[in-house]
Amino acid sequence: MDPNTSGLVQRLAEAGQSHLLQFWAELSPEEQADLTTELQEMDFKEISRFFKNAMETSSSSKHEKMDARMEPVPREVLGSVTRDRESLKDWEHAGFNCISQSKVAVLLLAGGQGTRLGVSFPKGMYDVGLPSHKTLFQIQAERILKLQQLAEQKHKIRCCIPWYIMTSGRTMESTKEFFSKHNYFGLDKNNLIFFQQGMLPAMDYSGKIILEGKGKLSMAPDGNGGLYRALGNQGILDDMEKRGVEFIHVYCVDNILVKVADPAFVGFCVQKGADCGAKVVEKTNPTEAVGVVCKVDGRYQVVEYSEITLATAEKRSADGRLMFNAGNVANHFFSYSFLKDIVQKFEPKLQHHVAQKKIPYVNAQGQLIKPDKPNGIKMEKFVFDIFQFAKTFVVYEVLREDEFSPLKNADSQDGKDTPTTARHTLMSLHHRWVLNAGGHFIDENGRRVPAIPRDGAAGSVTADGNRNLKDGTDLPIKCEISPLVSYGGEGLEELVKGREFHPTLTIDEHGVHELVKNGV
Amino acid sequence: MDPNTSGLVQRLAEAGQSHLLQFWAELSPEEQADLTTELQEMDFKEISRFFKNAMETSSSSKHEKMDARMEPVPREVLGSVTRDRESLKDWEHAGFNCISQSKVAVLLLAGGQGTRLGVSFPKGMYDVGLPSHKTLFQIQAERILKLQQLAEQKHKIRCCIPWYIMTSGRTMESTKEFFSKHNYFGLDKNNLIFFQQGMLPAMDYSGKIILEGKGKLSMAPDGNGGLYRALGNQGILDDMEKRGVEFIHVYCVDNILVKVADPAFVGFCVQKGADCGAKVVEKTNPTEAVGVVCKVDGRYQVVEYSEITLATAEKRSADGRLMFNAGNVANHFFSYSFLKDIVQKFEPKLQHHVAQKKIPYVNAQGQLIKPDKPNGIKMEKFVFDIFQFAKTFVVYEVLREDEFSPLKNADSQDGKDTPTTARHTLMSLHHRWVLNAGGHFIDENGRRVPAIPRDGAAGSVTADGNRNLKDGTDLPIKCEISPLVSYGGEGLEELVKGREFHPTLTIDEHGVHELVKNGV
Repeated sequence: MDPNTSGLVQRLAEAGQSHLLQFWAELSPEEQADLTTELQEMDFKEISRFFKNAMETSSSSKHEKMDARMEPVPREVLGSVTRDRESLKDWEHAGFNCISQSKVAVLLLAGGQGTRLGVSFPKGMYDVGLPSHKTLFQIQAERILKLQQLAEQKHKIRCCIPWYIMTSGRTMESTKEFFSKHNYFGLDKNNLIFFQQGMLPAMDYSGKIILEGKGKLSMAPDGNGGLYRALGNQGILDDMEKRGVEFIHVYCVDNILVKVADPAFVGFCVQKGADCGAKVVEKTNPTEAVGVVCKVDGRYQVVEYSEITLATAEKRSADGRLMFNAGNVANHFFSYSFLKDIVQKFEPKLQHHVAQKKIPYVNAQGQLIKPDKPNGIKMEKFVFDIFQFAKTFVVYEVLREDEFSPLKNADSQDGKDTPTTARHTLMSLHHRWVLNAGGHFIDENGRRVPAIPRDGAAGSVTADGNRNLKDGTDLPIKCEISPLVSYGGEGLEELVKGREFHPTLTIDEHGVHELVKNGV
Repeated sequence: MDPNTSGLVQRLAEAGQSHLLQFWAELSPEEQADLTTELQEMDFKEISRFFKNAMETSSSSKHEKMDARMEPVPREVLGSVTRDRESLKDWEHAGFNCISQSKVAVLLLAGGQGTRLGVSFPKGMYDVGLPSHKTLFQIQAERILKLQQLAEQKHKIRCCIPWYIMTSGRTMESTKEFFSKHNYFGLDKNNLIFFQQGMLPAMDYSGKIILEGKGKLSMAPDGNGGLYRALGNQGILDDMEKRGVEFIHVYCVDNILVKVADPAFVGFCVQKGADCGAKVVEKTNPTEAVGVVCKVDGRYQVVEYSEITLATAEKRSADGRLMFNAGNVANHFFSYSFLKDIVQKFEPKLQHHVAQKKIPYVNAQGQLIKPDKPNGIKMEKFVFDIFQFAKTFVVYEVLREDEFSPLKNADSQDGKDTPTTARHTLMSLHHRWVLNAGGHFIDENGRRVPAIPRDGAAGSVTADGNRNLKDGTDLPIKCEISPLVSYGGEGLEELVKGREFHPTLTIDEHGVHELVKNGV
């Protein structure tokens, strides 16, 4: 298996990547075979074009000018769960209507690995330590199942919500295995469609592909915007067409509160005739590290927090809100025809973004080096890069405490977006569901627990004179409601109204349970 | 020193407190003397009346009815830094005018000990680990000093802002010593007036005073509302009158961002003709553990989060904001004449609040017991209990990230209101001051740091596709500006405009410093 015979040596030389074979003689036959296969499948011309375009776009820094070009989302394009409450029922009804006709699919972006989370398996398989110990995948699966049931009850017809799951080369096998092992959490396996996003090599600043081992290229998924290419080349668009899918809810795996195929969001977008929509939460602090949906040069896009000046971030409207406050939470609505246009016409024209990274590499002596400064780039597209192509773009604002709590980091002091915060926000939401359905909680001394626990989901202000509160524990009420029982808080009155519960309270398809002695 | 001789035994028997002498025979002569002194000074009839009234008020639980009686703060009573920006300069001007005439005093509530913080000294002496290692007391002192200078510059007359510092029996000596040792941080010691709030014993549910040692009563300060009684019986009102103080800014020691004698707040209150005003921050999450300023039965008060139902906490106005969103931050404005009326007429009629606590006690066998359930109460008044007596009450809404970051708890995982959060919010504010004055920061690789660091002061949302950011550190820019240089961000342009800084940046009365190698 001499690389010469396949013309590989020459192709590499032409592409300026000959260094990839510098340790050839030291590799075992298996390693040689693996490397050859990997290199043969690679389109160096394309990669080199990606690199050139990405670096050009990146270096023609538009940052200084960005601020002047930004406009906020106009009110007429915005639906808000707090400001348009009178329309919510309508939107929800419209959404359920589409779901009942099996026109709505969900599409999960799950190509990333839990690196920052400190695990080597896909994030969706993570158990944040809920009483049920359900994983993110299971929670999402059960929400889909419940939503199908609700739509069927309302419209008296069988329906299905196909679930497209985008993995990457690194997560495909373990993800499929996990679902299979858990019998697809009760979903029909024919309605789960796994596909795979592309991978791209990490490059140094001169465009050389980085070796992370003597026979191993440094590869990474091509960003969640790799979705669009994968939709085309993995036959997913065709599958959607075959199934008659008209509307697609795209979301990231890591948000434990995600309302998959949220009927109100879908209904709002459909009623507005939108081809593309973004769910957002209000950004309230100017220095919050969140990208904001806005218009730039008249076209919608997500502007990242690193791209704007503080002065722009601090601008306020007459109502006192931040002017650029539509915080992106990676929850999007697309029409099928929009996605088709994107895949066929627009996406190929989009450049990759450049992420400067500290990329471990082997040096000329074959030693693995972990650099302490960025030494190269990864190339990524983002799922929101295509907003600019929308003909009718809408924005739907929801409450952070109800819908957004991503799992990004391992538990640590002062940690944000950790397993602990994910667990607490979910339990806090379910606690509120129980209270709003007329249930109550009592503590170990038999006293009613105040509706607002000392440590609210996002609480940071403490009043003077805290009283009648448990000392020292500062933990939310332990309460978990299975998605199989309630998708969004509905249907709980008959189970909890007028009743008093000792935490831990769990409500699942088998009934209502109280665990008086509990861990966590 | 037989307790009989002083009639103490009989007084105790009449008060139902004879148990306080149960270990008399086991005490050393010194202990006997101390206990006798303590008991002789105690007004058992008053304590017993406090107990009876507090318990009655507490048990006639009004909680169920509270919700229906609550009304939000009307817009015409509210001044807002985000919604009334066109008035800010006016208010500030009015405030500086009062300050320049030495009509404004500040009053610090510093009677508490840092129990939750895990220290045995007064909180104001705490060093949160800023580059300067200044304590909370020093930061506040320097802000007062700077404000005097600013007022003098603007109005060309000498002025002073008297600083009244309320301590308690436990913190008086160490507080005074600390200020003396640090030469009053440059303030004129004649304008620092220390006084002491009262103490009350902890009681069991039957009204017996709890012993925390064989010869030692369990005593605690009488709440920050103990202020009003102390103002009268410690001669503070007289001192204010003598000095011609007309307006008083009252605040708690633990807020590292506190704008002492905030000219805009004072000016707003004065322009509105208010006798009483509360500074608030917007409560944005229904389950945030913060008391809210509102009207109950037509009178202003702070309703604590434990007193309202979730349904009320979740109510929203047409503009989408929480209806009860005026989060109390223990920053109040009082006119002198209002305080005088309070002290002389109204305060004595107020009942104490009951705080059920786990209170360590000695049992009949003389063993110290640390209960794991509440076993008794502490009695407290709150500083905001007197809002109800205001004739013209106003509310002033400020930005949390600019003005409120209390130090409550020791550093710990997931900690809120800790030394770390206090340090970070102050440095984040000063970072923003530098950016807004035209300065920039560059990282160790010589690249400009984006205006919004990955970990904003209250950041919890992470966008997809973080890029060009330092991996792994997630810390705010290290930047500290001495209050002696800038009270609220003013006067920095000449120092920073167009310059690039390596953190740690410190700016103090000696100049601008960059520490390239740094700790924290």
